[in-house]
Amino acid sequence: MSELASVGIDIGGTKLVAAALDAEGGVLERRRMSTPATEGDALLAVVVELVTALAGDRRAPVGVGIAGLVDLDGVVRYGPNIGVRDLPLGQLLAEQTGRHVVVGNDATVAAFAEARVGAAVGHDDVVMFTLGTGVGGGLVVGGEVVRGRNGGAGELGHVIVHEGGRACPCGNRGCVEAYASGASIGLQARERLVDREISSSLREVPELDGRDVTLAAAAGDAFAIDLLADAGHWLGVAMASVVNALDPSIVVVGGGAAIKSAPFVLPAATESMTERLMGRRFRTIPEVVPAQLSDDAGMIGAGLLAAREAAR
Amino acid sequence: MSELASVGIDIGGTKLVAAALDAEGGVLERRRMSTPATEGDALLAVVVELVTALAGDRRAPVGVGIAGLVDLDGVVRYGPNIGVRDLPLGQLLAEQTGRHVVVGNDATVAAFAEARVGAAVGHDDVVMFTLGTGVGGGLVVGGEVVRGRNGGAGELGHVIVHEGGRACPCGNRGCVEAYASGASIGLQARERLVDREISSSLREVPELDGRDVTLAAAAGDAFAIDLLADAGHWLGVAMASVVNALDPSIVVVGGGAAIKSAPFVLPAATESMTERLMGRRFRTIPEVVPAQLSDDAGMIGAGLLAAREAAR
Repeated sequence: MSELASVGIDIGGTKLVAAALDAEGGVLERRRMSTPATEGDALLAVVVELVTALAGDRRAPVGVGIAGLVDLDGVVRYGPNIGVRDLPLGQLLAEQTGRHVVVGNDATVAAFAEARVGAAVGHDDVVMFTLGTGVGGGLVVGGEVVRGRNGGAGELGHVIVHEGGRACPCGNRGCVEAYASGASIGLQARERLVDREISSSLREVPELDGRDVTLAAAAGDAFAIDLLADAGHWLGVAMASVVNALDPSIVVVGGGAAIKSAPFVLPAATESMTERLMGRRFRTIPEVVPAQLSDDAGMIGAGLLAAREAAR
Repeated sequence: MSELASVGIDIGGTKLVAAALDAEGGVLERRRMSTPATEGDALLAVVVELVTALAGDRRAPVGVGIAGLVDLDGVVRYGPNIGVRDLPLGQLLAEQTGRHVVVGNDATVAAFAEARVGAAVGHDDVVMFTLGTGVGGGLVVGGEVVRGRNGGAGELGHVIVHEGGRACPCGNRGCVEAYASGASIGLQARERLVDREISSSLREVPELDGRDVTLAAAAGDAFAIDLLADAGHWLGVAMASVVNALDPSIVVVGGGAAIKSAPFVLPAATESMTERLMGRRFRTIPEVVPAQLSDDAGMIGAGLLAAREAAR
């Protein structure tokens, strides 16, 4: 039987998943619950309880991935979807559990999981885009997670693809998130359907969002298929910029929205990226692949990272 | 007296600089010559001769920075300005000199030099843009040079700022190089001067290029100043994308064209970058600074990198 090596926790805007993990990121036991809609205190109490439930008296470091900007000291500076600001989650959790704790951005730790035990095993230089309501990302360079000065590295949703273009929730314009996120795909569908000439099953859907577009595409709706290919085109532009900057050997696309939309988004993204790579005749073009760890990536990556940092 | 620690060589499109360096990248002795306009053999012979002249019988590894795509084995896959293709420079140089040899892209090794002994001393996460005839770049993450799978990391001139925009020499459209390189600034000046209403001293300059624009700006020409501010604006858009991706603590701007144009380009670049950073209210904004090592950066960085790799 595999031994407990870490506890991994992923705190998302709506749900929280946690697991006892072995040294290879294998799940020994898992828990899943709604994220407390609250101030930081209740969130902290829930996390401490989960750690106790999963690890008991056994020694194990704790890794937490959370949707937000987390600095290198484990302070959640800003987590808009969770309602926390300047919460010293790493320090509080270490004090209350007596364990080694690592806290990082959810997409950053997810990229580490995919690199170590997922779609990018064997790759030292990995770029990961996560597609969900927004667009996020994570980077692994030379086998190490890139966290940056503020812990803010990997915000690939805010790579600008068209200066002055579509408005992005971040306040800027032209970010790839404004073209390829679930929210923006839903919005673009509604904008285009103003043209009454367009025939699509989506016309009948109330409060249309990106998920509906993916479902319609899967059912063969040509308008929906076009929308996802366009999102893929823009995603490929952002990929080209990041690949020109980092020259990774693989690009992984994950996140909740990618699971079903990948067959419609990835071919266009791969084509548009490849066309735009600097020196494309003289280099190996990175593979573009779907993520493998699905919703578990953040939890597994957080645990693997905590185990590695604790061992140093 | 400082001891020889490495020989650093920078092979550019027109000139070749080399030096005997101490362990801190200090120049003990230097040579400078025109780059042989030739096949690889003559270039190799010149480099071997320089190494012998600078190091004699003393033990010292050799670092070479070269304008082109250099893979991780030291093969110059493509050096358009030097006229080489698939030249195994690292291996040939090691065989002929019996020394440890490291070959890398010139801007990549320049970034390492600025991080270790130049404008970014004390910073572990450094983004460097180099402005010249084209736009290049180099990255340092966690104190290590980022080379990528093909050795092609750091091609920041081909970060796309405006999909479908101005044509770039790489064959793509909308790369920042198409807006902020010396060549493109000259081209944009010529394009705008078709409007006979514009008054500028540049109207009288034959075969106008980016250097002429910088000279005119320095002399107070408002049209030239505007052109450089526009180039800075676009440079800032690319900086925002790269900073959102990597979250460095400093952005260095170097390269031959930056030395005199920096006062006109950097303020606009800094402003445009800052406005576009994700979570700008919750993070430390990286400084944007001019490079310090000028034309020596590539040579020094190559030597420092060779010394470090030889010691491992």
